[in-house]
Amino acid sequence: GPGRNKDKYETNEVPGVVTGLAWTRVGGDILFIESILSKGKGNLTITGNLGNVMKESARIALEYIKAHADELQIKYEVFDNYNLHIHVPEGATPKDGPSAGITMLTSLVSSFTQRKVKANLAMTGEITLRGKVLAVGGIKEKILAAKRAGIKEIILSEENRKDIEEIKAEYIKGLKFHYVTEMMDVLKIALLKQKVKGARVL
Amino acid sequence: GPGRNKDKYETNEVPGVVTGLAWTRVGGDILFIESILSKGKGNLTITGNLGNVMKESARIALEYIKAHADELQIKYEVFDNYNLHIHVPEGATPKDGPSAGITMLTSLVSSFTQRKVKANLAMTGEITLRGKVLAVGGIKEKILAAKRAGIKEIILSEENRKDIEEIKAEYIKGLKFHYVTEMMDVLKIALLKQKVKGARVL
Amino acid sequence: GPGRNKDKYETNEVPGVVTGLAWTRVGGDILFIESILSKGKGNLTITGNLGNVMKESARIALEYIKAHADELQIKYEVFDNYNLHIHVPEGATPKDGPSAGITMLTSLVSSFTQRKVKANLAMTGEITLRGKVLAVGGIKEKILAAKRAGIKEIILSEENRKDIEEIKAEYIKGLKFHYVTEMMDVLKIALLKQKVKGARVL
Amino acid sequence: GPGRNKDKYETNEVPGVVTGLAWTRVGGDILFIESILSKGKGNLTITGNLGNVMKESARIALEYIKAHADELQIKYEVFDNYNLHIHVPEGATPKDGPSAGITMLTSLVSSFTQRKVKANLAMTGEITLRGKVLAVGGIKEKILAAKRAGIKEIILSEENRKDIEEIKAEYIKGLKFHYVTEMMDVLKIALLKQKVKGARVL
Amino acid sequence: GPGRNKDKYETNEVPGVVTGLAWTRVGGDILFIESILSKGKGNLTITGNLGNVMKESARIALEYIKAHADELQIKYEVFDNYNLHIHVPEGATPKDGPSAGITMLTSLVSSFTQRKVKANLAMTGEITLRGKVLAVGGIKEKILAAKRAGIKEIILSEENRKDIEEIKAEYIKGLKFHYVTEMMDVLKIALLKQKVKGARVL
Amino acid sequence: GPGRNKDKYETNEVPGVVTGLAWTRVGGDILFIESILSKGKGNLTITGNLGNVMKESARIALEYIKAHADELQIKYEVFDNYNLHIHVPEGATPKDGPSAGITMLTSLVSSFTQRKVKANLAMTGEITLRGKVLAVGGIKEKILAAKRAGIKEIILSEENRKDIEEIKAEYIKGLKFHYVTEMMDVLKIALLKQKVKGARVL
Ligand SMILES: [Ca+2]
Ligand SMILES: [Ca+2]
Ligand SMILES: [Ca+2]
Ligand SMILES: [Ca+2]
Ligand SMILES: [Ca+2]
Ligand SMILES: [Ca+2]
Ligand SMILES: [Ca+2]
Ligand SMILES: [Ca+2]
Ligand SMILES: [Ca+2]
Ligand SMILES: [Ca+2]
Ligand SMILES: [Ca+2]
Ligand SMILES: [Ca+2]
Repeated sequence: GPGRNKDKYETNEVPGVVTGLAWTRVGGDILFIESILSKGKGNLTITGNLGNVMKESARIALEYIKAHADELQIKYEVFDNYNLHIHVPEGATPKDGPSAGITMLTSLVSSFTQRKVKANLAMTGEITLRGKVLAVGGIKEKILAAKRAGIKEIILSEENRKDIEEIKAEYIKGLKFHYVTEMMDVLKIALLKQKVKGARVL
Repeated sequence: GPGRNKDKYETNEVPGVVTGLAWTRVGGDILFIESILSKGKGNLTITGNLGNVMKESARIALEYIKAHADELQIKYEVFDNYNLHIHVPEGATPKDGPSAGITMLTSLVSSFTQRKVKANLAMTGEITLRGKVLAVGGIKEKILAAKRAGIKEIILSEENRKDIEEIKAEYIKGLKFHYVTEMMDVLKIALLKQKVKGARVL
Repeated sequence: GPGRNKDKYETNEVPGVVTGLAWTRVGGDILFIESILSKGKGNLTITGNLGNVMKESARIALEYIKAHADELQIKYEVFDNYNLHIHVPEGATPKDGPSAGITMLTSLVSSFTQRKVKANLAMTGEITLRGKVLAVGGIKEKILAAKRAGIKEIILSEENRKDIEEIKAEYIKGLKFHYVTEMMDVLKIALLKQKVKGARVL
Repeated sequence: GPGRNKDKYETNEVPGVVTGLAWTRVGGDILFIESILSKGKGNLTITGNLGNVMKESARIALEYIKAHADELQIKYEVFDNYNLHIHVPEGATPKDGPSAGITMLTSLVSSFTQRKVKANLAMTGEITLRGKVLAVGGIKEKILAAKRAGIKEIILSEENRKDIEEIKAEYIKGLKFHYVTEMMDVLKIALLKQKVKGARVL
Repeated sequence: GPGRNKDKYETNEVPGVVTGLAWTRVGGDILFIESILSKGKGNLTITGNLGNVMKESARIALEYIKAHADELQIKYEVFDNYNLHIHVPEGATPKDGPSAGITMLTSLVSSFTQRKVKANLAMTGEITLRGKVLAVGGIKEKILAAKRAGIKEIILSEENRKDIEEIKAEYIKGLKFHYVTEMMDVLKIALLKQKVKGARVL
Repeated sequence: GPGRNKDKYETNEVPGVVTGLAWTRVGGDILFIESILSKGKGNLTITGNLGNVMKESARIALEYIKAHADELQIKYEVFDNYNLHIHVPEGATPKDGPSAGITMLTSLVSSFTQRKVKANLAMTGEITLRGKVLAVGGIKEKILAAKRAGIKEIILSEENRKDIEEIKAEYIKGLKFHYVTEMMDVLKIALLKQKVKGARVL
């Protein structure tokens, strides 16, 4: 919010809400990727003052999920019978870049499966159509922001491991890192088998 | 209107009209969010010289309402069988930003349910898809404008409480503040159970 | 037209033609709002070199009419079975702003009902979705232009009454002013019960 | 064409080809408005490097024709069953302004009725939805160009009569002028009852 | 291709490939207009880094062909049942202007009829909806490039005859020129009665 | 990824992933063209921060494949019943130009046929609708990058052979070059008869 740039992790029972990490000119911050389904014809709406690259991440995440629907135990009719809205607060702040890719992926799979997101977890990483998680920038600032916000576990690309190893140990004490190369592994770590309370039947 | 920038609260029996608070370079002002339904196929029209972020608020409000239609006692067919038009007078003034979010939400729910809006009430706050009300800026100027316009009660994000506490007591004498974190609580405060006179059957 | 900026009022038997008042850098002028229906699927076309705010006025007028179709004795099928085209000559002149709102409203209701527009009448005022007529600027220049063009009666927002009172009496001698707050009152003043000659059956 | 800006009138048996008058920085010229129908679903295509105002003229002409189809003896199904393409050569030259309005109107009615266009005729004038022909600029240059190109008769707005009267008599010797206020009168003058050779049955 | 701007004529058995002539800041060159049909619903795709005027040529060519389908012995269903893609290599070079008009026309008719294009032929000329071929610029540079590329025959607008006559005889020795005023004559010269090898049945 | 611009070849069992060669201001690099199919209505989505020319390559590749579906043993229904998404990581880097043409072509055919892509192969070349492979620029930088990334074989346009012959032999030792003029030959070299593991039945 205005005059107060640093957000706190929110324990959240709502499906489709996942914590990402942002890098801005004034330092790192956490951000929330939110997604929601409503009955419709499969339209995709993206809001949150996002640039084109970040909007592209949303489309890549959705297409990847569609192509792997069986593996993710999502019935294909859901894509045709629901509209998907993805939002990234806070609307006053322009946002761009590919680093929210895995966060969007996790948000969407949570919405489509109604599975709960692991508590105290944040993540950052670019996604691809072939299922790989790519490295992103601003790691140090993002990690410090995550710790400050109360995050306990972080998912990163294996390619970003070296960026963590360059951070002084005391700064990252108490944080657990998950390094991944495959997008499917992000979902295995981030999503519980358990569904959210009052899960919708899609 | 031209040459006379400060509006007055209007007692209003019309559904879908809710008083918001605006911050401009020449100080605060109240504004009206208006929404109206007409038979159609579920199209959304937004007018009032709005920037992209403010238009996004309208889409977030609508999607949130669709996803919580049962809870709000709105029949889902209404979304498919009516077009929704949201307008923010005055057309000559460009407007932007996320702070009209809760005002738009309230306006839309009033239109969809034909419930009356509480008298002498104004509000300001950003909305999210996960149901949280976020803080907005320009609080002091907005509050002074609200008082001047005859407003008695104001809904704000809990995160904006500290901004009110920084205002001299004499300036806010006679105003009642409602601090909220949940979008559902905005609706509980702002909308009466009673329907407007001559309520349409949707 | 080129080299001759000042138009005259035209007695007009055609439905959907209403005289508005424009304010330009070279003084006031009258303008004509024209609307026409053709068999179709409810599409709206707007021409006349109009800016976004003026185009928005057209959409507000149309939505307001749709939402009050019963009250205005318009059969709802008309909106679905006809295309509506709104044009504002002269195409070489860019035009913008919300002040043609009530003129557009009157033009559209005349087209949809085939009711005749009162003779020697002009008007200027912003419209809203909640049915209020708002004040507009450039009143003095507009009134002088109206008189020069042969106009006898003028509809204005009640909020513009003070602007008229500031004009020297001799300049407005012979003009009759109607001050309104409600859009429905504009229609009561401007539209005759009588239909135009050769009125179409819609 | 390049390096040779002045066109000649073309005797033309093709329907939908009408001679207009253009004003450019290097003087007047004639131009051809061409229209053509192909089986389709009523789409409108406009080419010829035209600006928005000139494109608007095409839409005004088409809507006016649709609204007066009976009077013009055009079966309404034609509008639904054919696509209309309007082109203005020469593509390398940007063109704009409302002055081709009556030329477009005549071209379209010729295409829709397959009626022949009067020989050696050119025209210039803005159109409106209410059926009036408005004055346009650059009259002197346009008239000289028309004469040079072999034109014998010219249709103009009554409001442009004074512009002709200001031209030295010797320059316009041998030219016949038709001054009109009504768009229907343009069609009466410009279109023969006779159909073109090999007229299509629409 | 990069670092080597001058193309050679290609003997080509493929339908829809026609050689045009381009004028660029570094001199003339030949270019290929390519078109291809695929089963679909009549959509038109245009690629090759083309400006608006050149894209307009493609649409004019297509509409002209549709309106003269009988004469060209093309069954009208082909337009509804196939998508048409027009491409102009080389993608790295922006291209614009109307001069590829007759080349596009010929390419499209070749694709729709599967007729073979005459060997060693190039062409340049603007097209119109009324069937005329207009003059284009840069003739000298284009002709020199054509000769250098191995072209033997060239189709031009009759209006460009004078541009050829200004070129020294020795530069154009061995080239045969066809001057045309009608678009139908371009097709008569350029397209063989014979179909391409392995012609598709449309 | 950020701070580390040079990618390595990835042995890859996934269909639709093909290695291309890019030329950037900081030297050559390899890039991956990814494509994926999902049930749908034949829509094409292109992501990866691509400029218009590169997007056009994707459309050319798709149309070429559609027009040669029989030859490529692809059932035409696949184009109607699946959406195609093409992505080029890394999203933070803007990319443009026609040189990824043959890489896109190969990626799409691999997705549509589920055939495996040859290991340790990269390629660069512009495509055309008539089936020719055109030369591209930046060959030296691209080849060095390919070698550095572990590539063993490279497909190029025959027109680029001279660019390879200008490179010192020691720099390209161990690389095998395939020079092609026909797009069909690219596919013969790049795609194995063998399908990928777990190939989808389309
Ligand atoms: Ca923040
Ligand atoms: Ca992130
Ligand atoms: Ca105000
Ligand atoms: Ca507000
Ligand atoms: Ca005027
Ligand atoms: Ca007005
Ligand atoms: Ca000319
Ligand atoms: Ca004209
Ligand atoms: Ca070339
Ligand atoms: Ca050409
Ligand atoms: Ca790279
Ligand atoms: Ca490549």
